Amino acid sequence: MTTTPAVAWIGLGAIGAPMARALAGAGLPVTTYDLFPAAREAIAEVAATTETAREAARGADVVAVMVATPDQLDAVLFGEEDGIAGELADGTILLIMSTVGPAALDATATRLAGTGVRIVDAPVSGGAARAADGDLLVMVGGAESDVADARPVLDALASNAPVVGPKPGDGQRFKIVNQLLCGVHIAAAGEALALADAMGLDLRQVHEVLGTGAAASFMFGDRGARMVEGAYDDVRSALTIFVKDMGLVAEAAEEVDQQVPLAIAAQQLYQRGSELGWDRRDDSIVHEVLREG
Amino acid sequence: MTTTPAVAWIGLGAIGAPMARALAGAGLPVTTYDLFPAAREAIAEVAATTETAREAARGADVVAVMVATPDQLDAVLFGEEDGIAGELADGTILLIMSTVGPAALDATATRLAGTGVRIVDAPVSGGAARAADGDLLVMVGGAESDVADARPVLDALASNAPVVGPKPGDGQRFKIVNQLLCGVHIAAAGEALALADAMGLDLRQVHEVLGTGAAASFMFGDRGARMVEGAYDDVRSALTIFVKDMGLVAEAAEEVDQQVPLAIAAQQLYQRGSELGWDRRDDSIVHEVLREG
Repeated sequence: MTTTPAVAWIGLGAIGAPMARALAGAGLPVTTYDLFPAAREAIAEVAATTETAREAARGADVVAVMVATPDQLDAVLFGEEDGIAGELADGTILLIMSTVGPAALDATATRLAGTGVRIVDAPVSGGAARAADGDLLVMVGGAESDVADARPVLDALASNAPVVGPKPGDGQRFKIVNQLLCGVHIAAAGEALALADAMGLDLRQVHEVLGTGAAASFMFGDRGARMVEGAYDDVRSALTIFVKDMGLVAEAAEEVDQQVPLAIAAQQLYQRGSELGWDRRDDSIVHEVLREG
Repeated sequence: MTTTPAVAWIGLGAIGAPMARALAGAGLPVTTYDLFPAAREAIAEVAATTETAREAARGADVVAVMVATPDQLDAVLFGEEDGIAGELADGTILLIMSTVGPAALDATATRLAGTGVRIVDAPVSGGAARAADGDLLVMVGGAESDVADARPVLDALASNAPVVGPKPGDGQRFKIVNQLLCGVHIAAAGEALALADAMGLDLRQVHEVLGTGAAASFMFGDRGARMVEGAYDDVRSALTIFVKDMGLVAEAAEEVDQQVPLAIAAQQLYQRGSELGWDRRDDSIVHEVLREG
């Protein structure tokens, strides 16, 4: 493989778009596709776009997929109309950057067995702002030589992209642990501030004083600030993502017979927020779920 | 009151002893008492000690109590043999630094009503090492003039001692929120690392990589390191403290009719650890509770 691989990029959502821009900004030849024409138009100034996923994938050295759900990954790869699997030549790197869980990686690997397609599992953490700066954390699972061939893409996107295991699925497993902590910490922040409010404390002072000591978490600092303001329509990360990801946590835990009672309690709160119609609002709105009583 | 109050110090446990030493080191005249003779002997070099709590309290301007539980607070104040309540003159500051919950503060205030004793509610966070350095966080609830008269003591113990409310109990309420976050974060760290282990990931790498990003918490960094090492007999904070404190969280939440599902899930894990006989081991052992299955 050349040292500057031709990249196909599938998925231009809230994180995918800034990632594709960061790749283009780093000088990599990138051809993009998204289901929504508006997303394609928005990036056309800095990267090539195509009308179908198959066109984007055709002839690429690295095909990166950054869609939202396991079902979307399956459709991108194996969809009847526009599935790209048939375009992936022997030796192509399929770089799965979505958070879809280890089961989806296993299923994908099984369906692509014998094709010579090399899967590198590489889910990310860090949000849109860090994505735009090429400053993500990427958790990489894959064979050494496959990861080496994906490295120019990983380096353009991440400030830290450790290999966390030798096989596709290990990146997802690592990301699952990350999401367990993040999802529980956001819910804990919501719960702590709901209790503080119910007890008549000053929420700004609670957030300020407890934000630096033994009670501190990244999420208490970040999401807690939005909870104090009630800024749920300043959407940095939509509630629906944790509805999905805590489901993936629960599924992965069940798979290995591991109890995860805090994650389950948090999952129920996100699920309840979804039932209240808050899927597209900032995930900090889990605080309001707890105040609903 | 003089600007250098005479201090009585009741309770020389894991945090109380270094606090009393910090007070003495700051030049405040302090007379100490603890139920255990060994604890009194250990501090005799730097502070006066007495054979009974009443003797220690007699004539003090500020009587600070740092015992472990609501029952112990009640015994110190109102015990038949050695209760100090009768020694507290009109105008004495009773500085309650234990974490005993708002209900215990209310009960104490009710029993001391009409005596002229001025209660300042001042639970702490930070652990033994910071206690020794006079670097604690103290969460203060009380009337302005009472807090002002306690200030020399607070300043000797704390790098930060904000007034979080105008009445005794407000400090406890603030501390309850702190403990909710701390207790949930420790349990979340235990759960995340248990799942990581069950999925075959490298725990050292999980702890290192996730300790700095969106999944980070003070407790994941601190207690997570001990979970990775299995260092449960290097006791920084005994499990029994969170058995008690998550009980206080649950009680305070019920009092104001606030749901706290994550705190309840965490409480059950600490309780289970207690049933396994681990009360005196480091609280990071909650990780092993989750591995027990």
